[in-house]
This record gives sequence, structure tokens and C-alpha cells, in this order.
Amino acid sequence: MERGSKFYAGKANTLYEVLDDSGDVLPNVIEMECTDRISAGDGDKKDVVEGKGYANNLVSTLLFKKFAAAGVPTHFISEGTTPASKFVRWAVMIPLEVIGRDFAAGSFCRRYGVEKGRAFDPVLVEFTYKNDALHDPLITDDAAVQLGLVTKDDVDKIYVYMDVINKVASDFFAELGLTLVDFKVEFGYNEGTGELMLCDEFSQDTCRLWDADGNSVDKDLFREGKSGKAVSDVYQKLVSMLEAME
Amino acid sequence: MERGSKFYAGKANTLYEVLDDSGDVLPNVIEMECTDRISAGDGDKKDVVEGKGYANNLVSTLLFKKFAAAGVPTHFISEGTTPASKFVRWAVMIPLEVIGRDFAAGSFCRRYGVEKGRAFDPVLVEFTYKNDALHDPLITDDAAVQLGLVTKDDVDKIYVYMDVINKVASDFFAELGLTLVDFKVEFGYNEGTGELMLCDEFSQDTCRLWDADGNSVDKDLFREGKSGKAVSDVYQKLVSMLEAME
Repeated sequence: MERGSKFYAGKANTLYEVLDDSGDVLPNVIEMECTDRISAGDGDKKDVVEGKGYANNLVSTLLFKKFAAAGVPTHFISEGTTPASKFVRWAVMIPLEVIGRDFAAGSFCRRYGVEKGRAFDPVLVEFTYKNDALHDPLITDDAAVQLGLVTKDDVDKIYVYMDVINKVASDFFAELGLTLVDFKVEFGYNEGTGELMLCDEFSQDTCRLWDADGNSVDKDLFREGKSGKAVSDVYQKLVSMLEAME
Repeated sequence: MERGSKFYAGKANTLYEVLDDSGDVLPNVIEMECTDRISAGDGDKKDVVEGKGYANNLVSTLLFKKFAAAGVPTHFISEGTTPASKFVRWAVMIPLEVIGRDFAAGSFCRRYGVEKGRAFDPVLVEFTYKNDALHDPLITDDAAVQLGLVTKDDVDKIYVYMDVINKVASDFFAELGLTLVDFKVEFGYNEGTGELMLCDEFSQDTCRLWDADGNSVDKDLFREGKSGKAVSDVYQKLVSMLEAME
């Protein structure tokens, strides 16, 4: 498989067509490259974090392989043509952000006046409706189903998958001395088979991690005002730990 | 039962102690009087709507009797000492507003960019966390349970009751040529027995009703800028219809 033309440049990922050996575009495969771009606050705050694309792709790839091994279908096919990219199955995305919370943090604390760090068991799952103009509002399962964003059967599957994803990711980060606080994932349908699968990414951009002293090891550093350089150093630390383990 | 001292004056209801024949305060009963006060926009807009207390108490009393007959435990005991009041069981309130939606309207349309009047079947149920400082944020069942606001068993019961409440109220208003669009109710626990029961009220203040031409016959008139007098006329129209039926 070879990289073809770029067809989408998102906030954190760039998407490319993929060519077969004859140079023809493969219908159900794309190459997804994590970028070094970082943004927060509905895109108001922007910067570049050197090495972030590689770091996120590494974490995401390691985790997606573990999720698949634990029974969660994913879009991941194989490593891509650069260290920050991977080949993935083309998906029709469900317009929901699916959030898993092991501990209260961020918007959840502000929304309900709850103290940071309050523990949830089992993982507390929330959906937000992916819509920039509406600022990704919280939505109940029932409303998501009745608005036709997802079927009831797939909501039930997503809850089962979220439990597995949470356990796998929590264990993965615990081995590195980090606590998984919360995370955001997205699901879609395999365009070929219609199967529900985990898509998007699982990285320091899309989860909260706290070290033993309660310090953030994730994008919160940027949200809270740290420079791209400082964020880069923290992302690289996780990369070094992962490379040392291999 | 006789009215005792006033002990609470809320936005739409005033609460009184209730005395037995010897003049002693009854422990588990209160008298709840609907007021003519109206407010909207987190209390920013206020006025008086003549006859509203009586209208709301009449609608609520008729409906609560029907809900009880259909198997939903309620706080209602009997008519009170004035036309705008009733005797009810003392309840430990669950801090949730429970919203039932048959058609999209109001905040739901704004939140999700959905057209007004979109139909839901079965009734779409949403919870908001009753907290003025936080502006009553939407909350998922799962979060409400994990924050200890309500038990999972009672959430399940509330869904069953909401279905009954919706059917009974929709039929009641349909007989008057009105469409029930959405409604807000509250539940609590009988302080004596611990039983989950429907409390608060079900009135033109707490539901949306549309006539055959799609005109509002409820508090939306006030939210949309009509005077207390104009709102009073519309509330009285429903009273006249109900009195004509009896």
C-alpha cells in the first residue's frame, strides 16, 4: 500500500488516499497521519508541539492493537508510511464523542459542581453530539437514538466496548505509573461490512493522565497555558517510557 | 386538617404546615398553594398572572388523580383549604427535573439544532440536575446515579412512570383539543414509607401545550414576551373548558 493524495486536513489528523501496487486508489482504506498541531477552547488557542504527531500515533497504535486483542473491532490495519501515520479502514463516522470517566475532571466538574478526582466505578460514559456550531453539547443515549445519530443496539455495544477499552487503557497506563482519568473516543461503521468499530485515536490529546503526584501528562498542560515546548517535553517523556519497554 | 404556619415561599408554590384537630403539627403532611407569580429566564423575568394559582392547582389536581388511578404513586392527598391549594405528603425530593418530550421544542431545539415539532416515540426522557447556581444542567442517568442523586432502581421506575404520566396527560389534553408537547415533573420519597412518588405539579407552567393551530397555551407565552394579563386570559380559557366538562 502506498500513500496517495491528501484529501482532508483536520485539527489533529491529516487523511490521505491509499494506492494499491498498480497505483489505483483502494476504496476502503485511508492513511491517517497525526499532526504536531494542537488546539483548545473550540480552536481559539493554537500552537505546534514538536513530536506530538509521532507520540500520539505511537500511543494510539499500541492501544488499538490491545483493544482489538481484547475483542473491540477497530479501524486499525497496520503501520503507515511515516512514523506518525497508520493505515485504517474507511469508516462512516457516528457523530458522537464518547467520553469515559474514571475520575471527575474538566468540564464534568464545572458542569455539576463536583470536586476534581471523584472516582467512578464502573467507568461513567457520556455522549456529546459532534457539532462545532453547537459546541458539542451533551446528549443522552435516548436523544441520540431518537435523533437518528446511532441505533439502540449500537449504543448497547458501545457501552460494552467502553468497559473493555477503559480496562485495557487503564492497565496500559498503570504499567507506566500513570492514572487514566478520562478519555474521548469515536466510533464508526466499516464502510465495507457495516460493522461497528472504534475509530479516531486514543492519545495524550484525547485522554487525561495523572502521574503519582497528580500532575497532568496530557493536553491539559496546553489548556492550562503551558507552551508548545513544555507540552512537547511531557509528550516525549511518555514516548521514552514506551520505547524503553519495547 | 387545618392550615398551619407558612414555612417556604418558592417561585410558584407556597408551603404551609398542617395541623390536626388538636392543633398539633402533622409530621408527614403539608399544604401546597400555587401562587399567581410567574418567572422565566432563571428568574430574570417576573410578573403576576391573575388566577394562575387556581388554574395550575385545578389542572394539577385533576391530573394527579388520574396518574394515581393509572398506578403512579403521588404526593397528593386531598383538596386544600383554598381553591389554589392541596394537601400533599411530605417528600424528600430527588434533585432532578425529569423532562418528557413528545415533540421537540424550546431548549432541546436550541441545544441540538433540531426543528421545532419533531416527534418522539416513545416519550423522550431527559434529566436535569436541579441547581440554580449551575443553571440546571442536563445530566445522564448514569451520572445522576454515580453522583448519588438517585438510585438505578428508581431511575428504572421513573422511566416506567414517565410513560404512564405521558399517556394519561396526552389523553387528558387531547380531549380538550390540545397537544401535549413536553412537560417537567419531579419525584421524591415519601418520608414515612420511603416510597418513590410523583411530587411537585403538572400545569401550564410546567408543560407545553399547542392548540390545533399550533399556538402556545402555556408559559411559553410569558417566555416569549406576552404580558401577565394576556397569559392570564389563556390560562383561564383552559379553566373554563375544564369547568364545562365537569
